[in-house]
Amino acid sequence: MNNTDNLVKIIEIKKSVFAENEKDADGLRAELKKKGVFLLNLMSAPGSGKTTTLIQTLRRLKGRLRVAVMEADIDSDVDAVKIREATGVYSIQLHTGGMCHLDAEMTRQGLDNLDLSAVDLVILENVGNLVCPAEFDTGAVRNAMLLSVPEGDDKPLKYPLMFSVCDTVLINKIDVMPYFDFDLDRCRENILRRNPKARVIPICAKTGEGVDAFADWLVEEVENWKR
Amino acid sequence: MNNTDNLVKIIEIKKSVFAENEKDADGLRAELKKKGVFLLNLMSAPGSGKTTTLIQTLRRLKGRLRVAVMEADIDSDVDAVKIREATGVYSIQLHTGGMCHLDAEMTRQGLDNLDLSAVDLVILENVGNLVCPAEFDTGAVRNAMLLSVPEGDDKPLKYPLMFSVCDTVLINKIDVMPYFDFDLDRCRENILRRNPKARVIPICAKTGEGVDAFADWLVEEVENWKR
Repeated sequence: MNNTDNLVKIIEIKKSVFAENEKDADGLRAELKKKGVFLLNLMSAPGSGKTTTLIQTLRRLKGRLRVAVMEADIDSDVDAVKIREATGVYSIQLHTGGMCHLDAEMTRQGLDNLDLSAVDLVILENVGNLVCPAEFDTGAVRNAMLLSVPEGDDKPLKYPLMFSVCDTVLINKIDVMPYFDFDLDRCRENILRRNPKARVIPICAKTGEGVDAFADWLVEEVENWKR
Repeated sequence: MNNTDNLVKIIEIKKSVFAENEKDADGLRAELKKKGVFLLNLMSAPGSGKTTTLIQTLRRLKGRLRVAVMEADIDSDVDAVKIREATGVYSIQLHTGGMCHLDAEMTRQGLDNLDLSAVDLVILENVGNLVCPAEFDTGAVRNAMLLSVPEGDDKPLKYPLMFSVCDTVLINKIDVMPYFDFDLDRCRENILRRNPKARVIPICAKTGEGVDAFADWLVEEVENWKR
């Protein structure tokens, strides 16, 4: 094994990704616009706290927006049940059959199971994954994501596409910041380097800290969309 | 929105996953056996501490095994550089071009860039993702994964395939257990429910606690393979 060169060898491994998905996604967005329904696509790595954040957010939207939730998961249904029980918000579970992401057609299959005339906002909780969901436009009006403190402030550099497609990045679990080598300013810088327009909102989903700002952003976005 | 029914609606969304990969993987394993080279596939979610764990492990393998590392990443090369600098172990970076996993053919492309006559063990650090890498046999002799405490003890229930394909599950970041609602016994139970044969090793990659057991397991496995 030759260990004399200091440069690390980089091998580009490529495989074609079929993505005729964009037209579908644009079509779905146009339909949603006509119906006055806003679709938010919420993404994150596994264990970042998407469901807890969602519960806190739904509580803050009560009486302000009519909401439904689509929980995408590989094969459990615990999240939809949890959300329904905690908030009373109508939630359906989308089983992806092992698939690592949702595309526009899969999202449409979910929406077909909702009464869209009765909602202003549909929140799609995507599969816990920082890679594939970023590659497939679901037809959502806005994308948001969670990065949790234990994952590290370097993640925007390692999963650049995810951070560049998201309008809002929630930084979750800020309560445990003292126990991790996580620098909020450096994280924000890393995010903005990938996506200068990103809105960054530090939160603690467990206590609800910071979630007001996210809920307010959503209300504003939905109002703009319905205009 | 009809909120009277208490049952959560489950919609099965399916898409075909082309996986003629298994033959390739078996072929690759047979070649490796002939060459006396052991391939370990290390997987986890983003931010679980794979690279830090790897560095601690490599230090413990020094003088016991001849090792090379393949770092798969979407488009950065920080991990291979970090490992080379911290341990002196020959590391190459595999760029997946946005792909969310490695299959056997992609793994072979990486191995083609190593001098296999000079190593006993190749460790492949797969893309940070709990979904797709579990679906694609890389041709590795053994699979191992990291679950970190902040991700939650319920992850084996939500990403069942990943836990069922792994021979060893490292539970990392046990030092922060007091700050999270994480029950080690419940986690172990959840893992064993998916995979009764799994070896579960709690570790703290930051301090090195528990990593000896992982290194010893690897040495034993490599010796068995080379027999």
